[in-house]
Amino acid sequence: MLGLMQQRPLLISGLVDYAATWHGEREIVSRDPEGAIHRSNYAEVAERAKKVARALDALGLEAGDRVATLAWNGHRHLELYYGVTSSGRVLHTVNPRLFPDQLHYIIHHAGDAYVFFDPVFAPLVNELAPRLPLVRGWVSLSDRAHAPAVEVSELLVYEELLAGASSDYQWPLLDENAASTLCYTSGTTGNPKGVLYSHRSTLLHAFAACAVDGLGLSGRDSFLVVVPLFHANAWSVPFSGAMCGMKLVLPGPKLDPESLFALMAEEGCTKSGGVPTVWLNFLAWIEAHRDRLDLEKIKLKTVLCGGSAPPRAIIEKFHDLLGVYVLHAWGMTETSPIVTTGAPLYKHADLSGAALVDMQVRQGRQVFGVELKLIGSDGRELPHDGVSVGELKVRGNWIVSGYFKGEGGQVIDKDGWFGTGDVATIDPDGYVQLTDRLKDVIKSGGEWISSIEIENLAMSHPDVFEAAVIAVAHPVWQERPLLIVHPRDGRTPTKEAILAFLAEKLPKWQMPDDVVFVEGLPHTATGKLLKTELRQRFHGHLAVTG
Amino acid sequence: MLGLMQQRPLLISGLVDYAATWHGEREIVSRDPEGAIHRSNYAEVAERAKKVARALDALGLEAGDRVATLAWNGHRHLELYYGVTSSGRVLHTVNPRLFPDQLHYIIHHAGDAYVFFDPVFAPLVNELAPRLPLVRGWVSLSDRAHAPAVEVSELLVYEELLAGASSDYQWPLLDENAASTLCYTSGTTGNPKGVLYSHRSTLLHAFAACAVDGLGLSGRDSFLVVVPLFHANAWSVPFSGAMCGMKLVLPGPKLDPESLFALMAEEGCTKSGGVPTVWLNFLAWIEAHRDRLDLEKIKLKTVLCGGSAPPRAIIEKFHDLLGVYVLHAWGMTETSPIVTTGAPLYKHADLSGAALVDMQVRQGRQVFGVELKLIGSDGRELPHDGVSVGELKVRGNWIVSGYFKGEGGQVIDKDGWFGTGDVATIDPDGYVQLTDRLKDVIKSGGEWISSIEIENLAMSHPDVFEAAVIAVAHPVWQERPLLIVHPRDGRTPTKEAILAFLAEKLPKWQMPDDVVFVEGLPHTATGKLLKTELRQRFHGHLAVTG
Repeated sequence: MLGLMQQRPLLISGLVDYAATWHGEREIVSRDPEGAIHRSNYAEVAERAKKVARALDALGLEAGDRVATLAWNGHRHLELYYGVTSSGRVLHTVNPRLFPDQLHYIIHHAGDAYVFFDPVFAPLVNELAPRLPLVRGWVSLSDRAHAPAVEVSELLVYEELLAGASSDYQWPLLDENAASTLCYTSGTTGNPKGVLYSHRSTLLHAFAACAVDGLGLSGRDSFLVVVPLFHANAWSVPFSGAMCGMKLVLPGPKLDPESLFALMAEEGCTKSGGVPTVWLNFLAWIEAHRDRLDLEKIKLKTVLCGGSAPPRAIIEKFHDLLGVYVLHAWGMTETSPIVTTGAPLYKHADLSGAALVDMQVRQGRQVFGVELKLIGSDGRELPHDGVSVGELKVRGNWIVSGYFKGEGGQVIDKDGWFGTGDVATIDPDGYVQLTDRLKDVIKSGGEWISSIEIENLAMSHPDVFEAAVIAVAHPVWQERPLLIVHPRDGRTPTKEAILAFLAEKLPKWQMPDDVVFVEGLPHTATGKLLKTELRQRFHGHLAVTG
Repeated sequence: MLGLMQQRPLLISGLVDYAATWHGEREIVSRDPEGAIHRSNYAEVAERAKKVARALDALGLEAGDRVATLAWNGHRHLELYYGVTSSGRVLHTVNPRLFPDQLHYIIHHAGDAYVFFDPVFAPLVNELAPRLPLVRGWVSLSDRAHAPAVEVSELLVYEELLAGASSDYQWPLLDENAASTLCYTSGTTGNPKGVLYSHRSTLLHAFAACAVDGLGLSGRDSFLVVVPLFHANAWSVPFSGAMCGMKLVLPGPKLDPESLFALMAEEGCTKSGGVPTVWLNFLAWIEAHRDRLDLEKIKLKTVLCGGSAPPRAIIEKFHDLLGVYVLHAWGMTETSPIVTTGAPLYKHADLSGAALVDMQVRQGRQVFGVELKLIGSDGRELPHDGVSVGELKVRGNWIVSGYFKGEGGQVIDKDGWFGTGDVATIDPDGYVQLTDRLKDVIKSGGEWISSIEIENLAMSHPDVFEAAVIAVAHPVWQERPLLIVHPRDGRTPTKEAILAFLAEKLPKWQMPDDVVFVEGLPHTATGKLLKTELRQRFHGHLAVTG
């Protein structure tokens, strides 16, 4: 027997209409690519989003067609977030920091019909356009005066498109499972893969973000959106912000500490969100200029931090310098992204000092709406005991069921579980603690050994500049850890000294089977250890030495 | 093109599993019908809910079968909330305060297979059972020792049913639109009508309740559930509580101020919710016993108030005596019930004193997830100007599409709008202010005149004990207001004096066309003015006197 409640689709257009009607005057402040501050509000953004829809109609775009952006966080990008999706097209947010070859691959693979770009990316457009003949047109996110000279067959100007469009438009009543946004994972191995979000997944995810114990967003907040709009839906902020009528402050391309500080102070920002690197710079700058800064002007209460784990120093300094709570969250492009957040459990509501930081450095607890479990090397579910190490698997309404165009094949099991590739423990209170990536963990006789844990320990030795731990094939144990050390300049530590140092803190079975010394370790362009190269180089190491 | 996100049904079983897994040790405290305090938690309640499911299986109940409760707020009632619904049956929460004839009608109309009742309602069961031969069995919500002697063919005992059932049970994967709970509107006219909620409507509504700007519920809260579980899903608290792992404190039948105060103090309650009448008594008792009470023990921060509008005095006294914020919400059984809540808009975050109370006495602003509009007498949408008076219409995923078994016929229009029968204004900031019931408003020449506003004005005259305003047919204006006054003992006000008094505050077109004096006004059993009787009596009044 079915209930007798209305069944209306969960659509992004509902968010846009809600924000325009009930929070119409709530501000959207953005720094234009030209550097000026632009003031708008939800009513105006919603009206312009309807003009976007009309303009896309005029360009002949149909439901499901992809529209790409190469843009920083600005009001026009936000208008596309609302207008492209609500009118039934798919917004493909492209990361302009990728290499041109990757950009070419992604835009071609997505089949983007139009690319909307900030004028600052004109050189990139000139490089890409000749190789992307299927892109029908390139749209400068500016007025005519600020449109760059680019060599493309069809250059359009955003403000002209909107000027020619009426805002008299009724959003279509779409299927709530229709595609809404598309975002590619950067992918350390293989080609980037597209994650295709739906209206339903987006709205349910936004509900979780607005929950007190999710991201705790409110219409009384002013949110400085440091996380890029091209990064996993900007952690839902454009959507959850509209759901609660939150003021949005969009910093454009200027993510330097001074610019962020000025915006925070001027726009009364109470919340913000971004990756740890941004905050490391920001906090270092504040410390360096503390004497001349009026910290009283900063109303910031909470900073959402994710993408990678914030070090203790970020959490402590935010607290000590600004009285800010760092809300640590975990997820990935494939999970919309929020799976866990650091909203404290009732019994931790009064924690302070180091004990509070101990809680905050963990990845937090699962929000309602998705499911999370820990799976051991034998495929069985592991207990929440804070000790058992396994891979995190997730399922739920904002978790991928597959990648765009079937890339990567079947990515969930028959019960819907998606393997995140993240290795972790979950403690009895439900806090997740990431320990490694699955591809880096050492599978030794059915037990998993964390490469990161040994690396961190080794790096606390005074003679070690950098360390890497990789799995090396072993005839008996399947895999065993090998420690590769880059010593500090002028130091010549011995294998025995390093092992003795580790033996004080590591269980015997987790001890590296060998230590080798190198003059430098290979890294990716973004600074991560390139373990694939190390694994190739030291492939048969234990067979030789063991 | 559909998104590539998982499509998993939104089910109450998901709430139960979530609470058991991630908030298992969070307490559920209840006062048993016998008076003792019973301590449980989400893990135990979830386990017993699974035993409920097994017990219903054993009784031969199928998906969609209705199971009724006649019970106060206790842990066993909560277990039924979770176990009956999650296993695919429909929980029909019956208001035991209704007259036996109404109870008979409702239980018969719902086709309830079993009735679970608190032992205290044994006399009611004895009265009802012979008239309800289709009820297959009556279950005492107790152990054997506390089961009452009732004259029914099949008396079962809850604790025995559970003792015989295993908790090894997997919730079925239901359609998210399947019926979950059933609640009848008391209905001032005609027969009671059943509102049949679905799993989807329940979960989306709970998301709204957990939002910061909804009810703002959190896992760090301890909620004293004064609103009965048989009253419109107890405003979602059993569901939204499980969604965030909130401690629930269930007061059983003891709603006297002293018992509530003791529970609040002992269980560290931070939030509560109930109708204004309960709070009037509670606050009066605190004032009377202030000298001997340790108010410091009360950790209450927010009291949710709805059902009818809380008077200013409640809002002010809660603030002054206990530092509590009254969160005024509006809705009805047909709307799950939350449509508006009094979470302050950003610009009102710093209000205090009378200005804050001015905001709180209004019904609040629309939450995201449903839609609200104001419709004038001509059927056109009215602006949010704080002046235009119209009927509130709502639509959305937690609004009825029709009543159980088709009672009342078509209740929504072709676009899904449901007429609430409440007449209101909406101000430019979106705050709703109820002014009347649609059936009581006077439709005068296309304009609406609020009966309540004139009544309140008239009752502020020193010679008036009680006043009623009704619409009376008028040859030119269609309807005009007639004021009916019951003077205070010993007073003999004149028509002219009353009209002169009103004329100081009412626009001329809203002035009553006549004033008649009576020796008493008719009331319903619950103390409301019985205007239907007055309308019959004064039907042709203006034709005679006009």
